[in-house]
This record gives sequence, structure tokens and C-alpha cells, in this order.
Amino acid sequence: MINIAILGFGVVGSGVADLLSKNKKQIADLVGEELNIKYILDLREFPDSPFGHLVIHDFDTIVNDESIDTVIEVMGGSHPAYEFTKSALSRGKNVVSSNKEVVANFGDEFLRLAKENSVSYRFEASVGGGIPIIDPLVSTLRHNDTQEVRGILNGTTNYILTKMFTLGESFENALKAAQERGYAERNPDADILGIDAARKIVILAAIVTGKLIPVDSIHTEGITGIRDSDIKLAESIGRKIKLVARCIVNDGAPTVMVAPFMLSEASPLMHADGVYNAVEYIGSPLGNIMMYGKGAGAGATASAVVSDVVSCCAKVGSLSLGFTKVKEGGNFLDFASQTYLAFAPEHADEVMLAFDDAVRVRAEECAVITSLMTEADIEKKLCALGEKGIVPLSRIRLL
Amino acid sequence: MINIAILGFGVVGSGVADLLSKNKKQIADLVGEELNIKYILDLREFPDSPFGHLVIHDFDTIVNDESIDTVIEVMGGSHPAYEFTKSALSRGKNVVSSNKEVVANFGDEFLRLAKENSVSYRFEASVGGGIPIIDPLVSTLRHNDTQEVRGILNGTTNYILTKMFTLGESFENALKAAQERGYAERNPDADILGIDAARKIVILAAIVTGKLIPVDSIHTEGITGIRDSDIKLAESIGRKIKLVARCIVNDGAPTVMVAPFMLSEASPLMHADGVYNAVEYIGSPLGNIMMYGKGAGAGATASAVVSDVVSCCAKVGSLSLGFTKVKEGGNFLDFASQTYLAFAPEHADEVMLAFDDAVRVRAEECAVITSLMTEADIEKKLCALGEKGIVPLSRIRLL
Repeated sequence: MINIAILGFGVVGSGVADLLSKNKKQIADLVGEELNIKYILDLREFPDSPFGHLVIHDFDTIVNDESIDTVIEVMGGSHPAYEFTKSALSRGKNVVSSNKEVVANFGDEFLRLAKENSVSYRFEASVGGGIPIIDPLVSTLRHNDTQEVRGILNGTTNYILTKMFTLGESFENALKAAQERGYAERNPDADILGIDAARKIVILAAIVTGKLIPVDSIHTEGITGIRDSDIKLAESIGRKIKLVARCIVNDGAPTVMVAPFMLSEASPLMHADGVYNAVEYIGSPLGNIMMYGKGAGAGATASAVVSDVVSCCAKVGSLSLGFTKVKEGGNFLDFASQTYLAFAPEHADEVMLAFDDAVRVRAEECAVITSLMTEADIEKKLCALGEKGIVPLSRIRLL
Repeated sequence: MINIAILGFGVVGSGVADLLSKNKKQIADLVGEELNIKYILDLREFPDSPFGHLVIHDFDTIVNDESIDTVIEVMGGSHPAYEFTKSALSRGKNVVSSNKEVVANFGDEFLRLAKENSVSYRFEASVGGGIPIIDPLVSTLRHNDTQEVRGILNGTTNYILTKMFTLGESFENALKAAQERGYAERNPDADILGIDAARKIVILAAIVTGKLIPVDSIHTEGITGIRDSDIKLAESIGRKIKLVARCIVNDGAPTVMVAPFMLSEASPLMHADGVYNAVEYIGSPLGNIMMYGKGAGAGATASAVVSDVVSCCAKVGSLSLGFTKVKEGGNFLDFASQTYLAFAPEHADEVMLAFDDAVRVRAEECAVITSLMTEADIEKKLCALGEKGIVPLSRIRLL
């Protein structure tokens, strides 16, 4: 019998407890031994839960209990998740986490500690809910030359953008609908400003390059500025707007960003709608592959957590993984793309003069698609226009 | 240094040699030791290849060489691949295979032999080219209650169906185009009759249920009977025809089949076009996920082979896997679906009488979509019509 402890008894924590209990025999067959939830750490009491009698309030009980093999950290937030993880790893316990915030901020330290103590630190559930993403990236793709990892990593924004696209709703109304259905939190900033997606792409970038980039150093745009008319314009040219997190790799050096992109049929990510997530990996000689599925929800996330727990407890090894902290996520100003820009119609002449090789795609506004330009070049032109009081209503890159 | 041998120096074999050589350092970092191709077994000589000096013609040299750690079997066909694999595993060597035919026919025996000799038998490249499919199914999903694994597993037929859909080509012309581009063999029977897809779904079914089903026992339909007008009908109701291999699981018991299905937007498989493959896994509590990518080609297949080689050589373990041979792949007659049927227009009255709750979807022919019916029930009605000389021009199930 292998004893485990769950830190945090919220949606994910109770989903994990349910799955471990419901499929107990099947999981024991995989692991070779039965798993036993010995403690659940939470501030609250759960008198009505079948797991209520396992709830304790003191982390020290867990970390001092030598019979605990694996600790499942599904609390969220940086603290005390950071302290608890560090302490558990130092005491020779495997740690499994669904907490993208701590992985993105402290993954380097945790992986080092795990190696020093000959235990595992695993975090499949931190990106893409139940979709197997981390494990394939760690174990089955790293012999390729990585060109890019990119994905739709935030279900909330994808749900909102899908509503705007299919129902013609405004951003505000689509956000309200997402909140009513529980797909967006009351304070949706981390999602709609792109911060959640930024944390996740930082984790994927670290896996494929070994470099752990500060989340706040990467170019991060959310979806709050996207207008109904942008969505319609995209549709009229056979595209959809999605919040895409990208890690472009050149000779091992990553350029990482989160921003809305207009995707075409040529991108398999285009068809990931609603609360679905998708990650595309492009490398040589493999070509491109995509993993797709629901990015959130108790069941999907619990499945990913339990897959890590099974791997830890069955002592299945994995290829060595280590992160090194670096200062920044590449030079975004060198990033080149075609960009859709919209301006008020009265500025058409000046805009077409500034972007003389752009194609005008809409008459009512002055909407253009530029040629392939670096961020530095496009910024220069927009600055010059800005000095004349001409500012774009929209600016969305094509992919 | 770890010595390996490659059996078969065709497209895949030389792709593997190229990748191992080109990314030698990167692979050594993952494994922790350098990999060395010591022998390549082939009947031919390759005087112009940079690997030509490694080519030998006698398998015994390899199996008797105690320094050989891992054997890569990329010969294809059942014999002598079967004998070589058995011999290598018995002599304590890991075996990595891209050969779906031997895995589907003898996987049970190979996995048993590998366990007895404390080595690995791995076959990621046997299904879905470079897409990580086998490893996620083996390692990260089996704690779920599997409801279904289904996929577009054959690139040749998917290329042909995509051509028919996008260009309105006939089956014969689309096949010719596929042959000209090297996507179909001169004798395309194994692909277009569904046999290749059947082998692959038998492998996936064995992973999720433990039961290895004889390939020739499962219901297998190819795409040779699909008419241009069927493709157009599908398009008119917002669907696409794809050759889908399915393993439906009820209480651990699989029902396995390969047949053309009309897919709707609700299925993520619908967007896998051209030579792309895709596998969808549906289980509880996970929900559905999909893995997508190129299903063939030297680079993609070599990537999958090398991922297995890296796992073997790095002594990364995996969850225990064993297959048990069973007699058949479930009772197809109990399988229920809505079905599109087309008849000559003069039979409309009799057809509508026989299928009285079917919906007529095309006027020129008598094309109907039935209600949800089991194969047994639909067969009964078609037999009765057959006795009157009324036979369907097309019969394609909906998904």
C-alpha cells in the first residue's frame, strides 16, 4: 500500500480523490500496489464528504509522516504551495502539481530538489487540463530539432472568442456568458489579459529549451481589445481569432509571446473551439503534431493529476529534465508577421501612405493587412502615425 | 556507448539512421550515453550510403553480439520479422518496431517474452507515424474508464477521400493521384480495403483492453465503394466521409471495426485531412482528447522509432503492458448507428416502406438516413429488399 496526501480539497482536489477512489482496483493494477489517501490538507472542514475524516489542517503532519510517498499539490497560488512543495521534495516525497503558477515560477528549483532527493516532480495537469502534453514533450519529442511549440492554452478566452465568432456577441456579453456558465471567474483578469496562457507557455518553453523564462518578461496581450468587427473581418478572409501562446525556437533560443492571432485553415489550431485547448508541436524531422482536448474541469484535470501519481508510485522513470532560469523570453521586436490593422476611415490616405505595400481588406474602416514586417518596423511606422494623432483601433497578427 | 542494430534499410530504416546520426549529441544528452549504430541488416548493399560499411546480411551476427543492447525492426511484413524479434528478445535485447503487422499478430508473445527477459518491446511507430499515440495510451490514460478509441489511421485513404471531397474527383482518379505522389503503393489493396487501418486499431484496442483480437475477425470495409455522389451528399448535410477505425468499449469488452463514416463538425476527427492521421480517445472522467499529425513519411516515422530507442536505452520504464489473444472483436451485429443508404430512384416507394422512419435526403436517387438501428436490424430489412432485387448503391454509417 502506498500512502499519498492531497493538498487542497477544491474542485481539482476532490476530483482527484473521487477518481482514486472510484477506479481504485484499476489503478492498483497499473501501479502494482494499492494507493491510499491518508491525508487531505485544507483550511476548511468537509463533514458531508466521504473523505471528510481525512481532512487535516496542519501540513507538518504530512511532511513528518515517513509513510507518505507522494504529495499532490492542487492548492493553486504561489504561497504556501511553494513552501509545501519544497519541504515535501526535501523530505524525499514525490510531488505532483496542477499549479501552473508555481511551476512557471519555481519549476527550476523543484526539479533540482527532486533530482537531489531521488524523487519525482511532475506537473502534467498544469498545462492543457487532461490532455497529455507535458509527458509527450518531455519523453517522446526532445530528440527532434524544435522549431515551435504553440497552443490555445486558455479555455476561458477561447470560449469567449468562440461565442463572439459563432453568435456575433460583443466581448462584454460573451464574458458575462462565460461567467454565468462557470467558465470565467468573477475576477477574470488572469485569463482575459493572457497571464494564464503566459504561465503555461513558459512551462512548455522550459521543457523544449531547458530555459525557464520570467512570466512577466514575455510579450503578453489579452483579448479585451478585440472588437466584433475584427471577428467579422477575420471570418471574411477565412480566418478565426484565437489567443495563441507561442514559443518559437531558433538554434535553441526561445522567443515567447501570448497574443491574439488570426488563424487560417492551414493551422490545425483553428478548429479548437469553445473550452477546448490544443497544443501544436513543430520540429524536425517529425513535422507538426497536435494534441487537443478540454483544458479544464474537475474530471479532465483529475485525470492528468492521477496519471502523474500513477507514474510516480509505479516508479516509472522519465527522461532527465532540468530548467535553468534566464532573464527574458527572446527579442520580440525581431518577431516578424503580417498584421491586420484597423483605423478610422478618415485616416485612410495617411495609413496607405505609411504602409504602402499593405492590402486594404475593408472599406468602411481603413482596415489593412501589412506585408511581412518585424515588430520593430511596424512599431516605427505606428509611432510616426501616432505623432499625427492616428492610432489603430485594432492590431492583430496573422498566423 | 550503447550499441544498436537496425533491421531493414528502407525508407524508415535510413530515416532512423539519419536522425540518430544528425542529432547524435542531443540524443546522447537525453539517454546519458552515446548511441552507436553497429550493424544494419539488409539483403542489399548500399555502397553510396554513409552507413554502407555497417550493412551486413546475416542476422546471427547481431543476435550473437552481446554488445548489442537494442534492435530496431523496421523491415515490415510478418516473416522473418517475427523470428528475428523473438530471437532478439529471447537473447535479452530490447526491440523497437514500426511494423504494425507483427505487432497486431504477435504482440502478445513479444510483450511476454520481453517481460521474461527483463527488456522492452516498444512499437510507437506502428500506429500514427510520428504522433505520440501508443505511449500516452499505455502510460497516461489507462486509469480512465475507456469508452472508445477511434481514429483516422490510414493516410492513403484519407488523402484519396480528401481529394474526392475538395476537388470532386472520382475514386479512381484520386487513387491514381495518390500513387503518382507516392502516397499509395502500386498494389494499394491493404490501404483501400481497410486492412492497414484494421491492424492499427487492433493494436490500440489491445492497449486499452488488454485483448489482442485477430485482424481478420473484425468488420472491415474499405473505401472502394464510395461514389462521388456520396461525397457530395455528405457535404450537403455538413459532413465529410472518412475511413474510421473504432474500438468501442463496454465494461472492458471491445467492439472493433473499420468502415467509412460520415463525420460531423461535432467530431474533431473531421478536420484531419490529406495524409494526416488523428486518434480520439474518449474516457471517464477525462472526456475526449485527440492526437493529430502526419501518419507516415520517413521523418515522422523515424521520430517515433527514435523516441522508443531513447526510452529503451535510457532505461526509462513504462507501466506494465500485456496482451491476451482472444477469438474475436465483439459482436458487430449489436452495433447501432444511423446509416445513409442510397438506392435507384425507382425503388423509392419500397425503400420508404421498409425504412418507414428514415429521412429522405436526396431526390435524384432514393437517398435516406435511417433512425438509430443495430446492424442486425438494418441487415434484416436490406435482406428483405434484396429478395425483391433491390440493393443499395451506397451504405455509409453516420458518426
